[in-house]
Amino acid sequence: MSDNSFGKLFSFTSFGESHGPGIGCIVDGVPPRLPLSEGIIQPYLDRRKPGQSRFVTQRREDDEVEILSGVFEGMTTGTPVAMLIRNKDQRSKDYSEISRQFRPGHADFTYQEKYGIRDYRGGGRSSARETAVRVAAGAIGDQMLKTVLGESYRIRGGVVQIGPHAIDRSRLDWDETANNPFFCPDPVAAGEWETYLDGIRKDGSSAGAILEIVAEGIPAGLGQPIYGKLDSDLAAAMMTINAVKGVEIGGGFDLAKMDGREAGDEMRAGETGPEFLGNNNGGVLGGISTGQPLVVRIAIKPTSSILTPRRSVDLDGDDVEVVTKGRHDPCVGIRGVPVAEAMMAVTLADAVMRHKAQCGLF
Amino acid sequence: MSDNSFGKLFSFTSFGESHGPGIGCIVDGVPPRLPLSEGIIQPYLDRRKPGQSRFVTQRREDDEVEILSGVFEGMTTGTPVAMLIRNKDQRSKDYSEISRQFRPGHADFTYQEKYGIRDYRGGGRSSARETAVRVAAGAIGDQMLKTVLGESYRIRGGVVQIGPHAIDRSRLDWDETANNPFFCPDPVAAGEWETYLDGIRKDGSSAGAILEIVAEGIPAGLGQPIYGKLDSDLAAAMMTINAVKGVEIGGGFDLAKMDGREAGDEMRAGETGPEFLGNNNGGVLGGISTGQPLVVRIAIKPTSSILTPRRSVDLDGDDVEVVTKGRHDPCVGIRGVPVAEAMMAVTLADAVMRHKAQCGLF
Amino acid sequence: MSDNSFGKLFSFTSFGESHGPGIGCIVDGVPPRLPLSEGIIQPYLDRRKPGQSRFVTQRREDDEVEILSGVFEGMTTGTPVAMLIRNKDQRSKDYSEISRQFRPGHADFTYQEKYGIRDYRGGGRSSARETAVRVAAGAIGDQMLKTVLGESYRIRGGVVQIGPHAIDRSRLDWDETANNPFFCPDPVAAGEWETYLDGIRKDGSSAGAILEIVAEGIPAGLGQPIYGKLDSDLAAAMMTINAVKGVEIGGGFDLAKMDGREAGDEMRAGETGPEFLGNNNGGVLGGISTGQPLVVRIAIKPTSSILTPRRSVDLDGDDVEVVTKGRHDPCVGIRGVPVAEAMMAVTLADAVMRHKAQCGLF
Amino acid sequence: MSDNSFGKLFSFTSFGESHGPGIGCIVDGVPPRLPLSEGIIQPYLDRRKPGQSRFVTQRREDDEVEILSGVFEGMTTGTPVAMLIRNKDQRSKDYSEISRQFRPGHADFTYQEKYGIRDYRGGGRSSARETAVRVAAGAIGDQMLKTVLGESYRIRGGVVQIGPHAIDRSRLDWDETANNPFFCPDPVAAGEWETYLDGIRKDGSSAGAILEIVAEGIPAGLGQPIYGKLDSDLAAAMMTINAVKGVEIGGGFDLAKMDGREAGDEMRAGETGPEFLGNNNGGVLGGISTGQPLVVRIAIKPTSSILTPRRSVDLDGDDVEVVTKGRHDPCVGIRGVPVAEAMMAVTLADAVMRHKAQCGLF
Repeated sequence: MSDNSFGKLFSFTSFGESHGPGIGCIVDGVPPRLPLSEGIIQPYLDRRKPGQSRFVTQRREDDEVEILSGVFEGMTTGTPVAMLIRNKDQRSKDYSEISRQFRPGHADFTYQEKYGIRDYRGGGRSSARETAVRVAAGAIGDQMLKTVLGESYRIRGGVVQIGPHAIDRSRLDWDETANNPFFCPDPVAAGEWETYLDGIRKDGSSAGAILEIVAEGIPAGLGQPIYGKLDSDLAAAMMTINAVKGVEIGGGFDLAKMDGREAGDEMRAGETGPEFLGNNNGGVLGGISTGQPLVVRIAIKPTSSILTPRRSVDLDGDDVEVVTKGRHDPCVGIRGVPVAEAMMAVTLADAVMRHKAQCGLF
Repeated sequence: MSDNSFGKLFSFTSFGESHGPGIGCIVDGVPPRLPLSEGIIQPYLDRRKPGQSRFVTQRREDDEVEILSGVFEGMTTGTPVAMLIRNKDQRSKDYSEISRQFRPGHADFTYQEKYGIRDYRGGGRSSARETAVRVAAGAIGDQMLKTVLGESYRIRGGVVQIGPHAIDRSRLDWDETANNPFFCPDPVAAGEWETYLDGIRKDGSSAGAILEIVAEGIPAGLGQPIYGKLDSDLAAAMMTINAVKGVEIGGGFDLAKMDGREAGDEMRAGETGPEFLGNNNGGVLGGISTGQPLVVRIAIKPTSSILTPRRSVDLDGDDVEVVTKGRHDPCVGIRGVPVAEAMMAVTLADAVMRHKAQCGLF
Repeated sequence: MSDNSFGKLFSFTSFGESHGPGIGCIVDGVPPRLPLSEGIIQPYLDRRKPGQSRFVTQRREDDEVEILSGVFEGMTTGTPVAMLIRNKDQRSKDYSEISRQFRPGHADFTYQEKYGIRDYRGGGRSSARETAVRVAAGAIGDQMLKTVLGESYRIRGGVVQIGPHAIDRSRLDWDETANNPFFCPDPVAAGEWETYLDGIRKDGSSAGAILEIVAEGIPAGLGQPIYGKLDSDLAAAMMTINAVKGVEIGGGFDLAKMDGREAGDEMRAGETGPEFLGNNNGGVLGGISTGQPLVVRIAIKPTSSILTPRRSVDLDGDDVEVVTKGRHDPCVGIRGVPVAEAMMAVTLADAVMRHKAQCGLF
Repeated sequence: MSDNSFGKLFSFTSFGESHGPGIGCIVDGVPPRLPLSEGIIQPYLDRRKPGQSRFVTQRREDDEVEILSGVFEGMTTGTPVAMLIRNKDQRSKDYSEISRQFRPGHADFTYQEKYGIRDYRGGGRSSARETAVRVAAGAIGDQMLKTVLGESYRIRGGVVQIGPHAIDRSRLDWDETANNPFFCPDPVAAGEWETYLDGIRKDGSSAGAILEIVAEGIPAGLGQPIYGKLDSDLAAAMMTINAVKGVEIGGGFDLAKMDGREAGDEMRAGETGPEFLGNNNGGVLGGISTGQPLVVRIAIKPTSSILTPRRSVDLDGDDVEVVTKGRHDPCVGIRGVPVAEAMMAVTLADAVMRHKAQCGLF
């Protein structure tokens, strides 16, 4: 029950610090005889890789993954798949100042309080660099789900709001996410965000975001009541991502405002079985998937590292002014998209296995 | 790793159906020598008990708890505390109709799809009746936290929005939650909600709600990164409560709109140590508590059982009209308050133990 | 991860003390649509029930089980099955003496050291009375395995040695276990044990035993390497039974004496597939079942409660003489047979589900 | 709950195959501020390293460990400690024959049956090469226990029997284990074993062994009843080691033969508290440590790879003769000593943390 592990049957355990020798994970529970190689995983990592536009950090990392175990002659063997990504851009800069300061909005203070020690280089373990290994694990989950669920299965994610600027849902087109640096499914909004983020950056500030992740082709019946509900597992999964401060399923917080006649998704006989007339429940009822698309949205706070000087304290409890230099994502939400997709994939891979174990026996 | 269990060290496993012989749980990991009795637990259950106003279900249940183990001469012994609540109001009504219909917004369809069988009486296992055992487990968690954390520790919850009507935060007074049937911390809003809910009920509909739960006196350092983050555990805990569709911590979804200068909670040297100048992070940074109040809000959808007839299908997949009779909560969010407080308590009790295990050894 | 829980997917959580209101458990992970009722479980409990011969304790307990949840119209629903056995024979005897003394060989001292408190009535939680709930959980595991594995599946256990008197394996006949009060598969040995145990009892002493449990009809492939090996899980399961001090698989400790030519089980092509020419490995290789009978033996120490006065200390650390009165099993190993069979069943039920989850997906 | 993970709070997850790129593990739950470095871990690995005498395999592996995370400036930070050992001696030999054959006594057949695929090079995942990572994890557990338990704590292990030749306990001297290639605590027996093993090897065979591991300085109160008993956890831990077929605690199987007067360890007031007059229970009562030395013995079967040709079948189920070439341990038990010590250490480290969590709160 390592706290650095995610999942029950399809599970992975993560390690590594921002400026240590490397990061990686061990993925266990992977079904045997699944085609797997570095070449299959790398494209997932490349989507999250830093330095791909001026709207993300300029840290130089190839994020090249090495598979250390669990794969033989191009196939998984059912034994643990260990993956290692060596850190490359560990600038040997001077940490003497930051080593004693708590950067506001970061985990510096809380790690120090908890452990009485911390690796202060780039945030150490609390750095979002750790999310690369989630993407690697998610790639395996995604491969597994494709094999088990078939053609109709697909996970797609995008940024649907940056700062106060939401997309126009009448223009929503998931294919557009590949055409702009924001994973934005609305090309017009993407244009606006470019201007907005340039302004934010000039001001020495940063922006928050809302992401939406949708999984299609998910059969009814996944999810384990009562404390292993699919939406609970998804909420937990998403809330572990750095800077996430809110999660909602389907209608989410807007459902609080609705009345019961609007909110309840009615059903009617359809061509191939029962059909829902709405998806306010986001594809989950009673913690179990309905067969509709799973819809999850997450709120991501603005990047805490900004160029504007911030008030804080140091290890001695004395007032200091923290000045961040260098290369930070003006909106961490953007690179959060492949990470949130990955967390959706690993959650679903786990749900598939847990369902099979109990309900697929006879 | 039972899916009907919550928690890792302070854990409970729940059982029972709405109309079966009874519901209950086994709470394990309880520290020894904690004063405990039915008399200590019952008041927590009484706050959640049905039938206390016209705004909640009229089902008659005393929710009288029996402790079956783990307590000796008024003290816990460190062995599992089992608790049993016999169901009393199991009206032997005619289920022939509902046994074949899927009530919209309920888990009828998904349980049937998952298990190929379901106890359709009152929703069976998926009924919110299960939440009574969470309150009983939460009572033990609360007792434990009082002993460990002392006087300053306190969990308080309330309804901060019903339908589109939010409280006015300038009037927020937690003591007011005891003075109205809504656990509402704003007496004026409580008056408005009375009118609103009477109207909703007359229309044969129901209302959603937003709840806020605040824990004070929580020391810095609780929570286990990376996948056992305190906010992730809280999100999972809250999302397991029936009808919850969204969870946010601190500023939550509003943080997406803010810019980085507003959002980051700065710090300054205070009289007794570092002080935060804001709490947009809701008392959690990097998944670890900051020492500030923990602030969680949850969105609860409108009650799915309403008097207005609903379109649905039956076991054969044929169209039916579902008509709900009887005694349902017009706003399930209200009775959710003691449940959400309980989930906060059990999550924190678990976090305290997990922290102690690793960081309190030497 | 409650320490009072057993199993990962097919799991149960146990509660209860020897002289409290009752004992019971919650079994989770039970596949849906399995026929289940008190009538199916009771015969398993009856085999373990006290008072059935002069060689076991005369405590009067019907061990009547009540199912509280998880069963609907005679079938499991996939939700937790809670079971309760009320304690009946809780003689209101005078505990003033024993409450302050540590009975040698019992857990009195260690519970006191660990928890600083203990329910001293009949050993409280550490009493072998807890094993009744294992038998109830095992009954469900056995029903599940019968359904999944079919006709060839069977678990059988017996006592193969009492004190220094082992059975003669040339006379081994499992059907004989039903014909004597010792679950002894050798009728001649059973006769000898009667005389031996009468003597031991007259001397105010007790006897140890060795049990053997065999599972047949177990397919190859069950068990999860590396730390979830089937033999490791079986060893853990058996070692949790009160008074067990040793576990061996197949040839066990005798294998240490053999040389590699004798020890290795060779194979040859058989009529319906590969056949093993020996079973020194007890049906497990590399932690995975071979398809052969699973063979486990356990060593059980002599009953610690004997009529002969024993030297010990009390709560103050002062020397005392402990005199046990009343009705104890002269050889606890005997009633251990249905318990060990149950632990075999729950371990295998769990293994089947864990295997299916990973290797039965596509 | 990865099956390749061991432990609940102090836990490690292992990966790697005999002839893949490397082996390693992630150790989680490590307390912060523990001195740690490769230099501290390496000596533990060196004790298990192959090629140190003619009685162990001649495979050339330095078993050089690299710490990838969790250590900063020579101290643990409380975050996961990942360790990697690159495989060096991966002879590119011809596997064409063995790739289709099942070596008797090995896991070749069962891995193939379970997964439908296997890495046949050197046994792949089922190779005892995996045990190196246990030793690395055990080193951290040992460091942690030294810090928490202090000077009196010590784990020592040795081989007490090879083939039919047991040590003479009147000569037992743990310091002798460093003076012979067998970790034998009896110098006379060590001499005999040399002759015996040379003979066994000449015969193209191999020998089994019995190991004894003793932990001293363990306080009373460790271990979690009912299913987390210390002896159950130790049995599980030991039974996961390759080739182990039996585990016993204290008197073990000999207790079955004793009568109750001999077996029960009586107590008397001692100078510094209660003292036991015997240790037939091996330092555990009711699954909880007594404060006496913990005594565990394990039976290890003879090495399955021997020079004598063996009958077996191949992938097609056809009869084959398996001829093992090369460099195998004539008695795998010998190099099992540091591994079994390591498993003792990690089990105890976990027990310490679990005890602290529940019983060290107030």
